[in-house]
Amino acid sequence: MDFNIDLTNARKAVSFPVEELTHFINGGPEKTVRRRWLRSLVDPKSDPIFSNIDRPFLSRDKYYIRVVKKLKKMLQLKKLYSLQKDDWIYLTTATMEMCISIPHDLFFIPTMERQMSEEQSSKWLPLAKDYSIIGWQYLTSIILETTATYIHETDEFEIHSPTLTSIKWWPGALARTSTHGVVFARLIIDKKEYGIHSFIVQLRFLKFTRVRIPRENMMMRFSKVSRSGHYSTPPHKKIIYDTLVANRTGLIDMSALFLSKVLTIAIRYSLVRKQGDNYKDLNNENLILDYQYQQYRLFSSIALVYVVFFNGMFTRKLYENNLKNIEKMDVSLMAEVHAISAGLKALCTDLVTEAIEDARQSCGACLNIGHGYSHLSGIPIILEFYAQYTSAEGENTIMHLQTGRYLLKSFLTAKKGFPIGGQLRHLSSYSKILMEKCTAETLEDLLDAETQLRAFCHMYLRLLSNLDNSIEISVATHPHGYDGSKADHMIDIIHLSRAYCYYTTLTNSHEGLQSVKKERPTIYPIIRTLIDLYFINTVINQSGDFLIDGYYTPHHISLLKEGQKKLLNIIRPEAIGLVDAWEFSDNDLNSALGRGDGNVYRALYEWVKMEPTNISERQGNIVGYEEGLKDIYTGKYLKEIGIDTVRPKL
Amino acid sequence: MDFNIDLTNARKAVSFPVEELTHFINGGPEKTVRRRWLRSLVDPKSDPIFSNIDRPFLSRDKYYIRVVKKLKKMLQLKKLYSLQKDDWIYLTTATMEMCISIPHDLFFIPTMERQMSEEQSSKWLPLAKDYSIIGWQYLTSIILETTATYIHETDEFEIHSPTLTSIKWWPGALARTSTHGVVFARLIIDKKEYGIHSFIVQLRFLKFTRVRIPRENMMMRFSKVSRSGHYSTPPHKKIIYDTLVANRTGLIDMSALFLSKVLTIAIRYSLVRKQGDNYKDLNNENLILDYQYQQYRLFSSIALVYVVFFNGMFTRKLYENNLKNIEKMDVSLMAEVHAISAGLKALCTDLVTEAIEDARQSCGACLNIGHGYSHLSGIPIILEFYAQYTSAEGENTIMHLQTGRYLLKSFLTAKKGFPIGGQLRHLSSYSKILMEKCTAETLEDLLDAETQLRAFCHMYLRLLSNLDNSIEISVATHPHGYDGSKADHMIDIIHLSRAYCYYTTLTNSHEGLQSVKKERPTIYPIIRTLIDLYFINTVINQSGDFLIDGYYTPHHISLLKEGQKKLLNIIRPEAIGLVDAWEFSDNDLNSALGRGDGNVYRALYEWVKMEPTNISERQGNIVGYEEGLKDIYTGKYLKEIGIDTVRPKL
Repeated sequence: MDFNIDLTNARKAVSFPVEELTHFINGGPEKTVRRRWLRSLVDPKSDPIFSNIDRPFLSRDKYYIRVVKKLKKMLQLKKLYSLQKDDWIYLTTATMEMCISIPHDLFFIPTMERQMSEEQSSKWLPLAKDYSIIGWQYLTSIILETTATYIHETDEFEIHSPTLTSIKWWPGALARTSTHGVVFARLIIDKKEYGIHSFIVQLRFLKFTRVRIPRENMMMRFSKVSRSGHYSTPPHKKIIYDTLVANRTGLIDMSALFLSKVLTIAIRYSLVRKQGDNYKDLNNENLILDYQYQQYRLFSSIALVYVVFFNGMFTRKLYENNLKNIEKMDVSLMAEVHAISAGLKALCTDLVTEAIEDARQSCGACLNIGHGYSHLSGIPIILEFYAQYTSAEGENTIMHLQTGRYLLKSFLTAKKGFPIGGQLRHLSSYSKILMEKCTAETLEDLLDAETQLRAFCHMYLRLLSNLDNSIEISVATHPHGYDGSKADHMIDIIHLSRAYCYYTTLTNSHEGLQSVKKERPTIYPIIRTLIDLYFINTVINQSGDFLIDGYYTPHHISLLKEGQKKLLNIIRPEAIGLVDAWEFSDNDLNSALGRGDGNVYRALYEWVKMEPTNISERQGNIVGYEEGLKDIYTGKYLKEIGIDTVRPKL
Repeated sequence: MDFNIDLTNARKAVSFPVEELTHFINGGPEKTVRRRWLRSLVDPKSDPIFSNIDRPFLSRDKYYIRVVKKLKKMLQLKKLYSLQKDDWIYLTTATMEMCISIPHDLFFIPTMERQMSEEQSSKWLPLAKDYSIIGWQYLTSIILETTATYIHETDEFEIHSPTLTSIKWWPGALARTSTHGVVFARLIIDKKEYGIHSFIVQLRFLKFTRVRIPRENMMMRFSKVSRSGHYSTPPHKKIIYDTLVANRTGLIDMSALFLSKVLTIAIRYSLVRKQGDNYKDLNNENLILDYQYQQYRLFSSIALVYVVFFNGMFTRKLYENNLKNIEKMDVSLMAEVHAISAGLKALCTDLVTEAIEDARQSCGACLNIGHGYSHLSGIPIILEFYAQYTSAEGENTIMHLQTGRYLLKSFLTAKKGFPIGGQLRHLSSYSKILMEKCTAETLEDLLDAETQLRAFCHMYLRLLSNLDNSIEISVATHPHGYDGSKADHMIDIIHLSRAYCYYTTLTNSHEGLQSVKKERPTIYPIIRTLIDLYFINTVINQSGDFLIDGYYTPHHISLLKEGQKKLLNIIRPEAIGLVDAWEFSDNDLNSALGRGDGNVYRALYEWVKMEPTNISERQGNIVGYEEGLKDIYTGKYLKEIGIDTVRPKL
């Protein structure tokens, strides 16, 4: 089939070397080669089991069976080629069949690696890596009513959930597949409580009514319980939570991947679909990507892809630095890593969820319903899978509260004149930063990287200082003191956390850009333009927070609005390159709208003909006809209740 | 089963008479009685076919068959009790089985009523009302490549879609059920084009390859084509589009209904579920509705329910006034009705979609994934159905462009000193309004109704005047003149439309409140508080637009932020009453979280046991086990590729 002409022309207009961007995304040319090879392993040409073409039409059970069959095949490939962790995770994400493997590989296995003693690891890890056991991490409720009580006589723990409310409900595939779980429960020895620890439990269902597990099933890298029931304290009581940070890192990476898939579909479709702007001139059709608003929506989301990508790298570095420290029993970075990764997880998943939904709607930009809603666009299935992540791995409200509280605590430290290190070291000069006003005069001035960051820093510090002041005032009279006062400012704490996260996502993006400038200078300008667009969008969407103390003037906002439009024009010819660089296969995207060759309508037409209902209708079996439609069309439903009607002929 | 004690206590704390609110929602006590009776007709106790309890577990086909069976039964009830339009529509929305009936009753039938001549109506309407034919309104693409060419010889029109791009893709139930459609197509007589007209076409599939229909199938109330092919001009060439306005009105009403269902679930759950704020004090559990942020999310959405409700009333009145005029061939109100209903449709569907999604997330507010994601909460199914409406009935971007352009056009008229009537008559004093600054000193001052509206009017007028200026400046040098300049300001036009819609939704709410104050004074205070909350939220979320010209000062914003928290405290005890008043049955909500008696966990537990997969698992049939899981667990998948492994015992 020929390639769509408009899409082909669009590709010719890209001015940067797309393959350089591919290398950047993958982490180097060797990784690009490796990943292309990995994708070939799961191409339908290698094995038809990997074809996704009928996926939109499968029932829930049939879909699940398909996933299991693909997983089995992939595990064989894993063994045949001795695929290690990174390759294996790439393979599973490339096939979109992650509902089983992601929790197991990204969460269950790392938890065991982090928290099991060497002896425990040597027994459990091979089983997990071979999928002999399949696991998940169960947190039950935040109150953690689930207890693990040591039974001296049998050298066991008794896991118990006393009430219905502590049952962890897990909708979806995991409940069907998992054989084991990491359960977080309150450790009790001789009626004394030792706080929350993690245990590995074999399970079919999650209400624990006095389930016995061997003592060795408690993860004992840091805390230990001996045969005599003696408890050894870990270096930091929250040390087991670092697995949560690992989860957040994986999630941020995955967010960039999912959003780039959706945008590949939406950008390609927008370079194929034409639409006129009014009824009068029926020949005045433009590609929908030539409309400013479509550009605004989609290019803003492309910018978000790369911001999230840079922040995945940042969070991973933060996590790994902390890990090195923990190995030396140094927990000095822990609080910061937790607090910052929490807010980043929340902001990234919130913004990406909105962006995926917006891209879906952008494919419906015409008077008919458009295709975005239909499963044949490939977008609903991504949204369905991704939508859980504003709640999973830490509900976003709770995440922002953690970050916000950490900021308030650090601010108090800075106010007292104590030194602040790490990510928040700028707090030491907070009063100086708060006194600044923006002196930029042109758009170019405003877009200078350092100037951008100073503005965002000022903006969040203003909110932080105001909030601190507000809480202080209300503490004086609050019946529940400081905690009560904070509870009365929850809305502001969350807003503060978001503002800080805008600042830190921008900072991390500019930092990442420095490496790009050095290592891949040919792609630096376009990626820099995207980060500039993220900056401008954030200012315009939160303009009140920049205007409130006069940091920016109305004229600055006005310059940035003009700049926004200019940047859209710059990005326009490069857009297709920015998504093609991710190299998703047609089978992976499984989208008629997002096909690499741009033959959207023919694909839709063929696909719809394939739909089982359509096939059976063409064969004369219309679903629902015998069961009721016939009676409705013919009026028999009226006869059944004793009403005779004569139906006029049409 | 006993009622949950917290929920019961919450109900006792409501200070206004909930039944008065019910009467307000229904339109009077007689209507309340009527609707309770209508709901009893579709209660499972009347006929088990109406039970929704297994709905989350049905496959797509089985669900469709269930809908058809329910529809058949409901049509029998319709005939038995001679239910007229309003009752019938209420009945279908009460059963949530609207995928067939809503397009047919809310869109197809009204289109025929509005646009068919008396003779045509008398033939077609009885067939439609009996569901002897089932229809939809097909717009195909905005370019309307579909043509209707008059064939003199046979007195027919030939409907033709020349290319694949003009096929209207209709995913979902409609394609299976519809026997006929209203098709909008370009009328061509003797090679001359007469613009877009509507035709009724029998159809199975939507690619029209030279389909012939009788001439009488063209809807001829306004435009006519005679046997000799003579065309009579209608009084206004866009007169057939008034059906679009009727659609938007229905949609706005439906939006309030859907959101109130979701909030009934979320509020009840938030009054049952407890959660502690931190790990330290495991006894410090509060109802999640006692957390400020949960209040903020959910009460803001309750406020939106009533704002949307008032705006449904407003749009209906606007539509009906226009209708009366059209009957007298007076089309003076048409342009305004179209422009304003377009923006209102867009703003309401955008805000309600966000609110439903936010309520879903709010039910996941704990470290486990929460229940909001699961189909057993009842929310995903509502979101799935509703999510199409940001694209259907007019894609929201297009809608805002229509409103925005109308505002610009009217502004030009006002600038020239010509009189402006109707909804935009305030434009006559635009320069005076633009010179104002807010003189309020206290929160009470700011919340005065007139003061609220003056602020919103000023805010949108500032945007309008700035945009007009900006466009004028760029026209001077733009290669494509005024149209080109507008295209370069699409982002601003859409932002302007949203701003105007915030103003008009607030205006219409205060207007509606005046009637409430007179007729049902006991519920006035709480509804007024909700509208005030909508006002405050909008200012805070768009604070940049109020600060940009100094209309509001930072102090005003500060007062409003405090006010926001105060209003949340006022609403807290009333929240359950505000949702209970809608009187949704447990079967209708079909939600374990939103049960009237609050027994959430027991319901979830029982429901999960009911799930076919769980049942078959308990019977030993695990989906996917034979097909692949067994091979994975036991390591047989390795043997199949020639790798022998010894699996260690656990």
